[in-house]
Amino acid sequence: MSARSTNSEVTFAAIDGAVTAPVGFRAAGVASGIKKTGNLDLALIVSDRAASSAAVFTLNKAQAAPVLVSKARLSASGGRGRVVVINSGCANACTGPEGLRTAEEMADAAARAAFVEPTEVLVASTGVIGVALDSESVSAGIAAAAAALSADGGPAAARAIMTTDPFPKEAAVEVTLAGGTFRIGGIAKGSGMIEPMMATMLAVLTTDAAIEPALLQRALTMVVDDTFNAISVDGECSTNDCVFALANGACGVTIAAKDLDVFVEALRKVCEPLAVGIVRGGEGATKVVTIEVSGAESTADAKKTARAIANSPLVKTAVHGSDPNWGRLVAVAGRAGVAFDLERARIQIGDVELFAGGRPYDERAPLASKHLEGSEVVLRVDLGTGGSGRARMWTCDLSADYVKINAEYRT
Amino acid sequence: MSARSTNSEVTFAAIDGAVTAPVGFRAAGVASGIKKTGNLDLALIVSDRAASSAAVFTLNKAQAAPVLVSKARLSASGGRGRVVVINSGCANACTGPEGLRTAEEMADAAARAAFVEPTEVLVASTGVIGVALDSESVSAGIAAAAAALSADGGPAAARAIMTTDPFPKEAAVEVTLAGGTFRIGGIAKGSGMIEPMMATMLAVLTTDAAIEPALLQRALTMVVDDTFNAISVDGECSTNDCVFALANGACGVTIAAKDLDVFVEALRKVCEPLAVGIVRGGEGATKVVTIEVSGAESTADAKKTARAIANSPLVKTAVHGSDPNWGRLVAVAGRAGVAFDLERARIQIGDVELFAGGRPYDERAPLASKHLEGSEVVLRVDLGTGGSGRARMWTCDLSADYVKINAEYRT
Repeated sequence: MSARSTNSEVTFAAIDGAVTAPVGFRAAGVASGIKKTGNLDLALIVSDRAASSAAVFTLNKAQAAPVLVSKARLSASGGRGRVVVINSGCANACTGPEGLRTAEEMADAAARAAFVEPTEVLVASTGVIGVALDSESVSAGIAAAAAALSADGGPAAARAIMTTDPFPKEAAVEVTLAGGTFRIGGIAKGSGMIEPMMATMLAVLTTDAAIEPALLQRALTMVVDDTFNAISVDGECSTNDCVFALANGACGVTIAAKDLDVFVEALRKVCEPLAVGIVRGGEGATKVVTIEVSGAESTADAKKTARAIANSPLVKTAVHGSDPNWGRLVAVAGRAGVAFDLERARIQIGDVELFAGGRPYDERAPLASKHLEGSEVVLRVDLGTGGSGRARMWTCDLSADYVKINAEYRT
Repeated sequence: MSARSTNSEVTFAAIDGAVTAPVGFRAAGVASGIKKTGNLDLALIVSDRAASSAAVFTLNKAQAAPVLVSKARLSASGGRGRVVVINSGCANACTGPEGLRTAEEMADAAARAAFVEPTEVLVASTGVIGVALDSESVSAGIAAAAAALSADGGPAAARAIMTTDPFPKEAAVEVTLAGGTFRIGGIAKGSGMIEPMMATMLAVLTTDAAIEPALLQRALTMVVDDTFNAISVDGECSTNDCVFALANGACGVTIAAKDLDVFVEALRKVCEPLAVGIVRGGEGATKVVTIEVSGAESTADAKKTARAIANSPLVKTAVHGSDPNWGRLVAVAGRAGVAFDLERARIQIGDVELFAGGRPYDERAPLASKHLEGSEVVLRVDLGTGGSGRARMWTCDLSADYVKINAEYRT
């Protein structure tokens, strides 16, 4: 892979390997039997040495058992987690005291298998809500995964955390700076129930740089806000969303506070493709839609409008049908609850301006249709307030397949 | 029709006739050529005598030309409107100064045709946004409608305001009280872009009772809040929503402040079936879903949760697929931004309790499936806070047909 870019004396290069691209990480993905299909359903990711850890969790008030367990262990270890264990096929959410016990046992089993302290484990689950997680399958899966751990295991782990995802989401970057070279790798899953609130679905990020837990948490929170928190498939925030980051320092590079900008930029280069990948693989999606809102009174107003557009079924169905129905964008901007000036607002589909100065330019609709027929769509809305608030968000189109997938998911 | 009910010495009876059920109202619906299909597309509703009027308008900041014109004329007449003119097939929204001129001309033409003052006219449009409304078709349609006005014209007017609606929405009630008998009739349209914010789509209500404009406005606002504002098809608030009410006193009954409760109850008996009718005829809908939220800390919290459920694509697709996926209801309640206690929350589908005391009762899922297979579905969520906040809202299921209708609406 190439895609090199330079920031003063720093070089960024996209690389393969996902969470095992950084030095000192091993991973595995196995089929434990939780999924009745026999597909991969259990991922184990291990740092071979002590590591810093950070996490962002769902803000949903109905938090799944593994979310509660990971929060407690992250706190107990003081940000020193080094193992992540994840199952797909069952969310272990709304499962009462037994579900909590199963999540605790899952973390403990991973600790034993990886020869680490119980507090050094982060655990996550994804799948159907309200169904008991089979602890025997989990134990057997963890044993098998521990035996299969390898420095090439990142892609298998990426596949093992999928549910309705049509493809795995992986990314990694190599950063060369004055002090040496470090890598950040990541995997993510998510396809439906996607509108993260401060966190998102499941993602695991690894780096072989050394970075203190508090600084790692700061970088993670900054980046998640513009990447995983800037996507929506269906406006639904899950009970199980987690993003985990592990930093083990195996490459000999230490990130101090003065290097935070570089680390954040590198982290963004991993998180953005993972987040956009979730949208591209959104349930029933055929197109990725980038929404750019400008001319808002504040960044918050711009984000609010971008989110309303990202969740508008009428915008998403129009994009699906390649219909340059800019009137629906005006209608959403007008109901978004932010300052909006119809006379000065501007609407673009791709680079085609369809509404400006209070008037439509419908003769340009065929050009906009052509843009919409592609698989990468850009919608631009200027709210016309003259303010400098801007925001960007990603979503997908809404197809009949989304309905089909979700009307038949469980039964 | 029967459906009689009694409130002390007051009797309510459902009757036929829609907006022409009350004495002293005539209406017509004609095909003016705005719809290229040749279907009815222009409705005229006239009180034969002076009337009180009231209205509730969309809160969308992108307000259509007819909304601006109706607001101005309602204010200029001091609540003394007596004519409503509505076209379907074109929303006359985002159409600039020309659109505003067309809306003014439309109102003026209706005033001339009905021999009333220009300020006595309320005007509305519904259909595609951003397309110019053909003023010649409108003028010809108004002339034809004026010639066709009749005391049996309510049902034709109901059909003339339809866009993607699969059936017309009409209701009327006859109220007998100590002081005599009065009637309230109504029509409504709406099928997509339905999540009214303080107003909804288009609806016209008539009564032959006499009631001062301020009192009529008060009654209308109260009732709209629990009926048209308590429905959602797709979470989209339109640029053109209006509810108009006309009261002409032709039956000799006067509603004073002390009679407001009876009038509000009668108005609710007309508005509720119209509002639920909009949901039943929602784009692609196969089921009406009643959402009842209880155990909230406040009414506002209960409404917020009910609205989040009504707009959840995962809940709506599960209902479509008759999937008793109560976990999605928990997930929405948890992300609704209100107080929620997972351990004390309760979820029912129909009368079947599927989650309570922090535990699932999945063995009852087949019973819940059976309920979901019907065309009238009830979802009940208790947020578990112990508070007395409750709310009710109506929505429909989300089907592949919704996507089909909206991916192909314009092109």
